[in-house]
Amino acid sequence: MKKISRNLTMLFDYYEMTMANGYFRKGMKDTIAYFDVFYRSNPDKGGYAVVAGLEQVVEYINDLRFDEEDIAYLASKGCFHPDFLDYLRHFEFTGDIWAVPEGTVVFPGEPLMTVRAPAVEAQFIETYLLMILNHQSMIATKAARITRAAKGRAVSEFGSRRAQGADAAILGARAAYIGGVSSTACAIADEVYGVPATGTMAHSWVQMFDTEYEAFRTYCEIYPNNATLLVDTYNVLESGVPNAIRVFREMLLPKGITKCAVRIDSGDIAYLSCKIREMLDEAGLTECKIVASNSLDEYIIRGLLHQGAKVDAFGVGERLITSKSDPVFGGVYKLCAVEDEEGNIKPKIKLSENVGKITTPHFKKVYRLFGKDTGKAEADLICVYDETVDDTKPIEIFDPENTWKTKTLENFRAEELLVPVFKNGKQVYTLPHIEEIRAHCKASLNSIWEEVKRFDNPHNYYVDLSRKLWDIKYAMIKEQRKGNKSKN
Amino acid sequence: MKKISRNLTMLFDYYEMTMANGYFRKGMKDTIAYFDVFYRSNPDKGGYAVVAGLEQVVEYINDLRFDEEDIAYLASKGCFHPDFLDYLRHFEFTGDIWAVPEGTVVFPGEPLMTVRAPAVEAQFIETYLLMILNHQSMIATKAARITRAAKGRAVSEFGSRRAQGADAAILGARAAYIGGVSSTACAIADEVYGVPATGTMAHSWVQMFDTEYEAFRTYCEIYPNNATLLVDTYNVLESGVPNAIRVFREMLLPKGITKCAVRIDSGDIAYLSCKIREMLDEAGLTECKIVASNSLDEYIIRGLLHQGAKVDAFGVGERLITSKSDPVFGGVYKLCAVEDEEGNIKPKIKLSENVGKITTPHFKKVYRLFGKDTGKAEADLICVYDETVDDTKPIEIFDPENTWKTKTLENFRAEELLVPVFKNGKQVYTLPHIEEIRAHCKASLNSIWEEVKRFDNPHNYYVDLSRKLWDIKYAMIKEQRKGNKSKN
Repeated sequence: MKKISRNLTMLFDYYEMTMANGYFRKGMKDTIAYFDVFYRSNPDKGGYAVVAGLEQVVEYINDLRFDEEDIAYLASKGCFHPDFLDYLRHFEFTGDIWAVPEGTVVFPGEPLMTVRAPAVEAQFIETYLLMILNHQSMIATKAARITRAAKGRAVSEFGSRRAQGADAAILGARAAYIGGVSSTACAIADEVYGVPATGTMAHSWVQMFDTEYEAFRTYCEIYPNNATLLVDTYNVLESGVPNAIRVFREMLLPKGITKCAVRIDSGDIAYLSCKIREMLDEAGLTECKIVASNSLDEYIIRGLLHQGAKVDAFGVGERLITSKSDPVFGGVYKLCAVEDEEGNIKPKIKLSENVGKITTPHFKKVYRLFGKDTGKAEADLICVYDETVDDTKPIEIFDPENTWKTKTLENFRAEELLVPVFKNGKQVYTLPHIEEIRAHCKASLNSIWEEVKRFDNPHNYYVDLSRKLWDIKYAMIKEQRKGNKSKN
Repeated sequence: MKKISRNLTMLFDYYEMTMANGYFRKGMKDTIAYFDVFYRSNPDKGGYAVVAGLEQVVEYINDLRFDEEDIAYLASKGCFHPDFLDYLRHFEFTGDIWAVPEGTVVFPGEPLMTVRAPAVEAQFIETYLLMILNHQSMIATKAARITRAAKGRAVSEFGSRRAQGADAAILGARAAYIGGVSSTACAIADEVYGVPATGTMAHSWVQMFDTEYEAFRTYCEIYPNNATLLVDTYNVLESGVPNAIRVFREMLLPKGITKCAVRIDSGDIAYLSCKIREMLDEAGLTECKIVASNSLDEYIIRGLLHQGAKVDAFGVGERLITSKSDPVFGGVYKLCAVEDEEGNIKPKIKLSENVGKITTPHFKKVYRLFGKDTGKAEADLICVYDETVDDTKPIEIFDPENTWKTKTLENFRAEELLVPVFKNGKQVYTLPHIEEIRAHCKASLNSIWEEVKRFDNPHNYYVDLSRKLWDIKYAMIKEQRKGNKSKN
């Protein structure tokens, strides 16, 4: 596979560097800090998200380095100490990273990634990690929703021209494939990431010929085995479809080719698709597929199918590649613990007037609890790093906000969600092939109850804290609030 | 400046290549085609857009080339002719491009860029051109709206972590600066594009110390001249602001430093900012600024100022860098003419059931007509390429949809919007420095009447067709509709 990634060490929010220089100068650069990546609410008021982007995080960590041009730029800002700049010349990541594998269904409030590293390193990588994980998780989630709405029909990703820059197009196509689309229009996503690329014709092809008939005929002559004719350049029912039928009969049927398609990119798709289906069937072209595109998303696709649209495949562009109905995935990166000189882990918390913005402190692990009978995920349990869930015995879990709401799980299997990715700066995780990630995503989605996956008012999946973690968190909230009134 | 751009020749929608191979095989590769880039409606139901991205288009055109890895990939798809692949080995752009300079205010329906080139070349570059221009125009427009709402207060772009990939962060910061923000958090946008980067501290800095007071004190010790303290890690009014005041008094005032700031990133900004202002003023810190961030955009900023919020500067993140309220800029690339063997330009049109989607045919030029008395732009006039507007005489313009609506302009100055950028494949345009582009944007915005720039129900700026162009367009519509019923 071709490699197109660049060294983007310099892609950081400026404050990461002012803080890093500060830690360095105060002798805190080697203080071990723990940060969690998590998000607070699901896109589109849905019941879940699909995490993606770990492969690009791994590449970034492995490639971290400042060149002399970067050092010169930083020196020119006049606020960084020369010793610190010297230190940056040999900067590399020496810490540990745990992450939820790409394609896994995830839920608000649980760590998707945990970083343990010297403070300067752990702080520095914040911006890039969030950008990558936020973007690709958003697109993978949107793709999972859209392919769900399509009920087994193929969905192709068409959005490059409306993507928010080149990486949005390319890595967006990658994330969309992980989430469930079956192909992309973006050729470089195929060449570099193995996302199958397809495509046939634009309106301009039709316009370049004297007549629509001639344009279709020429196309079928060159691509008899991949003839999807765009039928809405002039008039779908009066010109496009009749010309397509004529050309399929003249050019394909005599060769025994029955696999072909028409595409509509405008107009009333529910109405037109039914009319087109009738015309094609009457012409004996029962195997000719109908492809629809034009500002589609999960809501419009659901509506079209509800209205009985005769569409066999969808092309989805701008509303997938930008996640138009909810274009921000709000993952955050929060300090949850530091180690003292003796290596004791001290939990850290961030309060907020907004209860939902209070962080869960400490170095943590996450278990997903699957019912052995159903194979379905029943709850996620966030524990302190040194706890172990024994899945041979029943376990009582409780709602962290309404602690009287309890539930006892029996006959379950506990699986840790976070896996080691870096250990002492060395990659210890083998990146899976994109087809494996896509299959894992499909399996992970299948393990989630339908009620959690529906678009409207989905069930709230349980993400609970262990008793030990809950006790630590609420003791810290109390103590901190007391502290506000005195020493802070 | 450091260069980070990659060769992205392979970033195209697959159908560009199936069509190109088709033109090649049918002897049409050298047919000269004309394509326009234009958009159909303004973002956020506004009255205008700001065009941006030309610099990256120029780089892309200059860098166009397929390497052997690309050719091998294309060959592996099994649908491209070996002669065509050979041709791609020496592919370069040999055509002409005209474009509206970056930073110019533009309106729906008018060409932002016109490409004249052999069909294969002109078709091929569609995807990348649209992606770049759509993305950066969207962000520059959003930035213009947000800085307008801020009424002269500084706006800093903070959105990298929520950007849709690296280019969205970097080029988004570039476009935001063109549109009017005064700085970015994105360091690489400074290093590569000269967008001033700034930043101070995150919540994690505060959490890394035993107390908030110690965290603030340490910061002011290291950065006495750039002390913006984040005051909402624990409790803004009971802890953050009192600690900031204490530290400013202990650390800065004795050194004669009065320039400092506090930042709030949560809570009720209207209420908190007024309370903070009182506390700062009472402490004698009248020059201490208040910076606010947290999911801001033009609507929230307008609301805050309307409520009397005492905010001196805004940090704007996810809602700017993704243009959250309208994250798709719908620029399109449409064939408008072809040349016959004798070099005669034959206009081309695309019809649609949707009247607004009918294209304006022909090779065109655009004049902006400025009132000489006011200096304000009064109308844009789209003409056929061989027409000239004589601004020494009055001109009558008319609404292309309601042709009885006419207006006579006198005492005006006509300026052509599109400038030559490439001639026979050679760059003939000198790319301006980003500061020039930003100044041009400011001047262009100033030349637009306030009524066109307001957020709610803005005036509709006139974008009219010359009589000659109107006659050609409507004759073609009639003829094409007749044709639908017969030969097509």
